[in-house]
Amino acid sequence: MAYELYYWPTIQGRGEFIRLALEEAGADYVDVAREEGGMDLMMALMDGAVRPPFAPPFLKDGALLVGQRAEILFHLGPKLGLAPADGADRLWAHQLELTITDWVQEVHDTHHPVGASFYYEDQKPEAKRRSGEFVKERAPKFLGWFETVLERNPDGPAHLVGRGAGLSGPVAVPDGGGLRYAFPKAMKRLERDYPKVVALHDAVARRPKIEAYLASSRRIPFNEQGIFRHYPELDG
Amino acid sequence: MAYELYYWPTIQGRGEFIRLALEEAGADYVDVAREEGGMDLMMALMDGAVRPPFAPPFLKDGALLVGQRAEILFHLGPKLGLAPADGADRLWAHQLELTITDWVQEVHDTHHPVGASFYYEDQKPEAKRRSGEFVKERAPKFLGWFETVLERNPDGPAHLVGRGAGLSGPVAVPDGGGLRYAFPKAMKRLERDYPKVVALHDAVARRPKIEAYLASSRRIPFNEQGIFRHYPELDG
Repeated sequence: MAYELYYWPTIQGRGEFIRLALEEAGADYVDVAREEGGMDLMMALMDGAVRPPFAPPFLKDGALLVGQRAEILFHLGPKLGLAPADGADRLWAHQLELTITDWVQEVHDTHHPVGASFYYEDQKPEAKRRSGEFVKERAPKFLGWFETVLERNPDGPAHLVGRGAGLSGPVAVPDGGGLRYAFPKAMKRLERDYPKVVALHDAVARRPKIEAYLASSRRIPFNEQGIFRHYPELDG
Repeated sequence: MAYELYYWPTIQGRGEFIRLALEEAGADYVDVAREEGGMDLMMALMDGAVRPPFAPPFLKDGALLVGQRAEILFHLGPKLGLAPADGADRLWAHQLELTITDWVQEVHDTHHPVGASFYYEDQKPEAKRRSGEFVKERAPKFLGWFETVLERNPDGPAHLVGRGAGLSGPVAVPDGGGLRYAFPKAMKRLERDYPKVVALHDAVARRPKIEAYLASSRRIPFNEQGIFRHYPELDG
């Protein structure tokens, strides 16, 4: 039975991490809200499920409904052969993923520091301050941490966990690509300091199934409704 | 062997959720950074571990180092008899916990919308806007979702998952108590709309081990360095 992914149909957003994992694994899946009538199905599940997800993305795997971006990847990873199936390695892969959750939230907040209920246009000065801090303090902290993780992997810096492609390989794609889209000037400087992170990102983007996906109509282009938004005034 | 919890020694913060779980279970644990020389041990692990946690809290369980608040609870829950050990129930409990992660971040951002590198005093107008949105939009959304979760639990609204005390029982304590501390005026109004959430919170706070802990010197009082801070000007 095909996996059913439920996510907003016009943005990459948090759903993109799930799409990339499914694509890398060549899994059979439906991106439900992009099909006719799919939005109604998504809203009905959110409103009516006995165990309703708080927000998209969520995944239907047979009778099981799984919400939260990182938990969906935790559930899918071993099934798709993209992440360790158990023990300390599985916990470590999930810990990386949860740190990416924090990171994604901070990227989002660069353009919405005062809250998601307000338009970007109503919080531009605040967004500029927050983006400045992000580029100067937070991006180096996160990128530096991932660089250290790669350096210390006993199996080498080509993988985040062990020797596998790892779910955190594919997930690096929207992340790195997204940062380049949102902050092209700042990233040009920053990338020099984190060569292993950049090499992993670029290697994942060249994997055959990922490359085919990125070139397909299934890939939603970056835009200014998603997590990674390009506002030149924030790219200090 | 005692569990070793590593967290900032002067705040409840994200570590409090772990402390509460360990206390409720009567587990043998050391709150390392509150012991003599403990801060040095904590920083050495963050700097030097092969799999370094991104930030406190983290837990040492024998040779295993587990980071990320929600993952620590995921690991501890079944071991302490506080959360389901496997299957869909375990995923659901974790999904609740990950939603609490999002929630905690949003509470933190009410006083630090422009970024954690700046003092609160340097972002007061922004904090006021963000807190206004939080009280009006976000708190009702989160509290309403938890109310629905309790309403739909086939085993009744005294538990979040099944019939067990559930790890998400204890974790409701700093959350609810923290909100009352940070936003006493707003919470007085809000609590009326979410009777099941309030009842669960208050029942957990009265559990014998939790009650004893809250009255002990191990419990760090709320203060204006933690997640839940009381700034009267933000309590609109």
